[in-house]
Amino acid sequence: MGTGKVFLVGAGPGDPGLLTVRARDLIAAAEVVVYDRLVSEEVLAHIPTGASLINVGKAAGFHPIPQHEINETLLNLALAGRDVVRLKGGDPLIFARGGEEAAFLARAGVEVEIIPGITAAQGGAASLGIPLTQRGVTRNLRYITGQCRSEDDIASYDWPSLADPDSTLCIYMGAATIARFAGRLMAAGRSPSTPVAAIAQATRPGQVSLTTTLEKLASDMGQSGLSAPVMFIIGEVVHFAAIHPDIAHDQISSPVVAAAE
Amino acid sequence: MGTGKVFLVGAGPGDPGLLTVRARDLIAAAEVVVYDRLVSEEVLAHIPTGASLINVGKAAGFHPIPQHEINETLLNLALAGRDVVRLKGGDPLIFARGGEEAAFLARAGVEVEIIPGITAAQGGAASLGIPLTQRGVTRNLRYITGQCRSEDDIASYDWPSLADPDSTLCIYMGAATIARFAGRLMAAGRSPSTPVAAIAQATRPGQVSLTTTLEKLASDMGQSGLSAPVMFIIGEVVHFAAIHPDIAHDQISSPVVAAAE
Repeated sequence: MGTGKVFLVGAGPGDPGLLTVRARDLIAAAEVVVYDRLVSEEVLAHIPTGASLINVGKAAGFHPIPQHEINETLLNLALAGRDVVRLKGGDPLIFARGGEEAAFLARAGVEVEIIPGITAAQGGAASLGIPLTQRGVTRNLRYITGQCRSEDDIASYDWPSLADPDSTLCIYMGAATIARFAGRLMAAGRSPSTPVAAIAQATRPGQVSLTTTLEKLASDMGQSGLSAPVMFIIGEVVHFAAIHPDIAHDQISSPVVAAAE
Repeated sequence: MGTGKVFLVGAGPGDPGLLTVRARDLIAAAEVVVYDRLVSEEVLAHIPTGASLINVGKAAGFHPIPQHEINETLLNLALAGRDVVRLKGGDPLIFARGGEEAAFLARAGVEVEIIPGITAAQGGAASLGIPLTQRGVTRNLRYITGQCRSEDDIASYDWPSLADPDSTLCIYMGAATIARFAGRLMAAGRSPSTPVAAIAQATRPGQVSLTTTLEKLASDMGQSGLSAPVMFIIGEVVHFAAIHPDIAHDQISSPVVAAAE
């Protein structure tokens, strides 16, 4: 019995139609699936009956499983000769620690194939028709994570750079820290009138979005009831949203909470 | 006869397995496809026989068709009652002018649906196992375009911000300008030893990649024969490449040109 192979697969933002063809085929043929908290129920529904399902997103009491245990789980399955589909929300190489898993497995001699996935920023932007880059407006797209463990962690960002008015800033998993991020951006010079879209449950049946300004973001988020995971898209491009009629205008005066159709 | 709908579809980086399921289904059922220069032959092969194919990526003499003519082509097809699959390489909202087309069509009353696509950065990174973010290394991912029309255009970038050592910088369509970009980054303080991966024809059968340092990038590119489109990934994350044995090491001493398996 040979060593199994690990397929590190991006599950995308939630809508199973946004899986790649390769990801969907691997899931449909899977014998063992190791999956994360952010993989949607709709994607998990494509796993065949009879496949072994291992949830490493949470354990009893909602403590996440440490990364080294996930690495060892994947390694042991492969050493036992099993091919493993390792499913991660979004793209495995963007804020998902896929690089750590791939490097660990490769060092141990296990073959790894990585299948990229649509990110929440892409899915959320597409659902509202927000261009992430726009000629003459921005040619500079940034992804950062809002998951920070401490004030020092937040302070360590290069805020003057992030406040660059010419960039589109996408903040992942920032629901808990967005008020402080917005404050830092304004303190570093980003205009309080900069438009912002906040998208919860992007591309899922429960998608809800809100558009506002950087200045009003914290209070509007507090009143909106949007719950994590939330993607924030900050920048002038939000003014160019093409699809959702509530935000396809040039002046954003008050928050609009819009449920997906 | 009603107005048709326009599906603005990301064709991904080239490998048809990296189309989304939604994109693949729309392509397979298409009656009219309007496509760009960067859409791969392998993806175009999935368009059914009998569909109308309109190439707006180039005209006789290789002059690109102006954006306003593309907009009008899409509008006229929709007004004629045709559903249109508008295929763009990568993601339609990232360096692809999809936002302009969507806004134009929406203003004219045409229904638009946007289907995101895997970007060349994601496809190239996955093929080599390069994490685009990595805990403790970078939590800051940037996409910029290397297509600049003039020196003033290049000078207008915020180079001190782009030289931030904590970020991963992905440069799209930069084959023609990369020598000047590398020079600007070093002049703004980015270390000459910063590792760089250059990936041509990412995810396509002809994929070729090269790893080097910022300092040697211009001369190595000149010698490599890598031809456009080339994706550049600049940052410490390149040291953590998990998959390709030639670059999965901590010290990059000389350029390695690697053909895809």
